[in-house]
Amino acid sequence: MRTLYHLWLDPFSRKVRVTMAEKGLEVLLTIESVWEKREKFLELNPAAEVPVLVEEDNTVLSDSDAICEYLEAKYPEPRLIPVDLYEKAEVRRLTGWFDKKFYKEVGELLLIEKILKQLKGVGEPDSRIIRVAQKNMHFHLKYICYLTDRRHWLAGSSLTLADITAAAHISILDFMGDIQWRKYEGAANWYARVKSRPSFKDILLEKVPGIAPSDNYKNLDF
Amino acid sequence: MRTLYHLWLDPFSRKVRVTMAEKGLEVLLTIESVWEKREKFLELNPAAEVPVLVEEDNTVLSDSDAICEYLEAKYPEPRLIPVDLYEKAEVRRLTGWFDKKFYKEVGELLLIEKILKQLKGVGEPDSRIIRVAQKNMHFHLKYICYLTDRRHWLAGSSLTLADITAAAHISILDFMGDIQWRKYEGAANWYARVKSRPSFKDILLEKVPGIAPSDNYKNLDF
Repeated sequence: MRTLYHLWLDPFSRKVRVTMAEKGLEVLLTIESVWEKREKFLELNPAAEVPVLVEEDNTVLSDSDAICEYLEAKYPEPRLIPVDLYEKAEVRRLTGWFDKKFYKEVGELLLIEKILKQLKGVGEPDSRIIRVAQKNMHFHLKYICYLTDRRHWLAGSSLTLADITAAAHISILDFMGDIQWRKYEGAANWYARVKSRPSFKDILLEKVPGIAPSDNYKNLDF
Repeated sequence: MRTLYHLWLDPFSRKVRVTMAEKGLEVLLTIESVWEKREKFLELNPAAEVPVLVEEDNTVLSDSDAICEYLEAKYPEPRLIPVDLYEKAEVRRLTGWFDKKFYKEVGELLLIEKILKQLKGVGEPDSRIIRVAQKNMHFHLKYICYLTDRRHWLAGSSLTLADITAAAHISILDFMGDIQWRKYEGAANWYARVKSRPSFKDILLEKVPGIAPSDNYKNLDF
């Protein structure tokens, strides 16, 4: 059986999980406490990071982009990365936007302050950093509104890896209850469409030990 | 003429420049002071980041991975991303390693402390952060030694985007004189091979206003 090493509330693991679910690929999920630097896990990925996918033929893959591009080439239906070169570049630009820019300016800051500090018992959340992240978040949500004003999905007329990636990152913030959705109607409508897909169901039902999601997190009509 | 908006000492711009040079593609280089948030530039890339490539047919591309993958598909010779699915995933894993992990743990910290603070006149370098980055750097250089003990190039038997990406990041540290090469023989031999390629020449000759490179930076036999 194909195995995915992952972590709760990790947007990169979620991106791979939703990609696999869209493609109808079954997978055994295993939580990996990466901070323990378990020797057998370091053999799979010396970066000591999830997600790591071990395919049925024992091919070992890490880095969420490398994994998703591999899955797209090996299991092309349904297509999540278009064939046309420019459209492909647009999907990768937006995927990179959320994985790098959004995560750095918003997601990682909130995860560290609001979740990791609590889990590891290392001090109180820094409200100054939380305010910076929330201010940055406004710009990104406005950009989703800008895109969805012009396109049905983020990168064009069909659902792609760009939507999956963005929604994976957004889902962590939504879990923490950080988004005032009524201010971002276009983004809210888009996220409701992604969230309602069967591929997103497991993410919404996920239990994180010791931390309850926001009231709206599982609500499909928010 | 094809135009690349870039910045000095930006590893992501360098990755695209070397990729284009390997493929023999001519390009007009234009420095973009991204912090000015020039309106015409934001129309090209609302992320306000370099590199941005404008192709001869006016196709606008941003995000270094999206650009390099586009160039690879459009100008496949010489190949910098293998055709085999697993080899492709290995190149992308290592490209992601340097663009994300290395940049976050080493390159960006040193760039901010040693270059950006000086350029912007905002305080002295923080020696504590510099020490953390240099400690992290050790792990990454040992990993390059580990890989080059087993392979001729980082991802296998031929030069790929993984080598170009890693060398682009390493070149910034080498410019600042941060690497004690004699401690990392395998990495030094590998970097000497990349550095000697004609595609790397422009990077080594680049003048950064107000900042001189380390003694060894242009030296091909260091």
